[in-house]
Order: sequence, then C-alpha cells, then structure tokens
Amino acid sequence: MSEEWLDEIKWDEQGLVPAIAQDYQTGRIMMFAWMNREALHLTQQEQRAIYWSRSRQKLWRKGEESGHVQRLHEIRLDCDGDVVLLKIEQLGGIACHTGRESCFYRQLDRSGQWQVTDDVLKDPSQIYSAE
Amino acid sequence: MSEEWLDEIKWDEQGLVPAIAQDYQTGRIMMFAWMNREALHLTQQEQRAIYWSRSRQKLWRKGEESGHVQRLHEIRLDCDGDVVLLKIEQLGGIACHTGRESCFYRQLDRSGQWQVTDDVLKDPSQIYSAE
Repeated sequence: MSEEWLDEIKWDEQGLVPAIAQDYQTGRIMMFAWMNREALHLTQQEQRAIYWSRSRQKLWRKGEESGHVQRLHEIRLDCDGDVVLLKIEQLGGIACHTGRESCFYRQLDRSGQWQVTDDVLKDPSQIYSAE
Repeated sequence: MSEEWLDEIKWDEQGLVPAIAQDYQTGRIMMFAWMNREALHLTQQEQRAIYWSRSRQKLWRKGEESGHVQRLHEIRLDCDGDVVLLKIEQLGGIACHTGRESCFYRQLDRSGQWQVTDDVLKDPSQIYSAE
C-alpha cells in the first residue's frame, strides 16, 4: 500500500492531527487524542490505535501497559482533511485511564455542574503497574 | 447558573477547546470544530452549537446561514477537561458544508484510497447564498 493517503491529511503546525476514537458497535465516543504521521501510519499497519503523546513527546501504543488495546475497524477523514475518526473495538471495555469505559464520563447538568455519569469499572491501580 | 463549569475546562494556549458534535440519536459523529469560552457559554445558553472559527477568527453560529442548526441535547467533558462532546440534533440532517450528513464521509479502503461513502444530500450552492 502506498503512503499517498497520508499525504491527503492536513497536519497542523506541529505535524499532528486530532483523532477521535469511537466504539465501532455502540457508537460511543471513547476518547480523543492526537496523531502524527508515523502514529497514523502504524495504526493502519498494525490495525490498532497508536497515538502521539504530546505530554511525553513519543508514540503511545494505546493498551501497551493496560492491555486495553483499541483494535482498528475503520479510519475516516473529515471534509477538511484535518481530523481523523477511528472506529475501534475497545479490548477490556475500558478506554479511560480512570478505569471508565469512556473518557467522556462527565455531563453538564441543568444547574451547571459536571456530573459523573459512569462508574469506574476497574481500579486504575490495578490497570497500570507502578512505574 | 454560575460560570464555574467553564472554569473547569482546560483551554489551550489559544484559549480554545476541541469540540466533537455527535448526533444524539444515531451516535454518528457529525463534525469537529473548536470553541472558545464565549462560544461554549453561548452554546449552553442558547442550547445550540456555537463554535469559534479559527480561519475567520470569529464566533460561528452553526446553521446561521444554512439553517442547519445543531440543537443541543447534552454537553460532556473528557477526563482531562480539555475536550468537549456535544450531543446534538442536526436540523436539516446536514452538518457538512459539502451538503453531506456528516463531515466524516471518507473511509480508507484496503488498497489505501480514501473512498467517499456518503451522498451529497443537497447542493452546497443551494445551502449557502452567494456572499
């Protein structure tokens, strides 16, 4: 497979593109992260989500430590070519580092408070080994 | 309603936060855009999506010209407090400026080509008046 499809993406000044990960079956949005060209290329090659960690400035193989790998089902691109959508299968059913299914577990209620709507499925200390 | 909920958001260096708009019924991701504090505040107040246009450097009241307003159903925030998810009802059934339902109308196929998977529902020239 040629790499031409990667050339159609409009990388930002830092060479990154936003990536949305959506459960391929339920449609739930699991998380949001960033990718550079290498991360997206590897995501396609290895058929699992690989992001670029802006805080650590290195590739982030989602699930590498936790086992919560995101198996790739589909890659989509938006009209402007500057946002990527991954449809994924979330192994372990947990995408969030807090131990919840999705990172979007807070909802604004009518009184203007962020309410936590999702339970912690697994204690983060049991997900991540001490480093 | 106080504005404290806005203080919990981690705005980036430009005072912006990424916003994902998702159909509240089908779960389809319709578009991706940016918001500043005022845009998000107005979105909550007016119960419709209002973004910040980075290219035009001004508020962008989605649907203002096209009529394709995004009626707000829910606002969610991610674990890091730096990405917002809107669950919306897409009036007119068209979110994309190309006249398609969703901006994410291209899918990477097995041969490495971006394939258009969605039809144009309405000719953009009929959506937007000449300016």
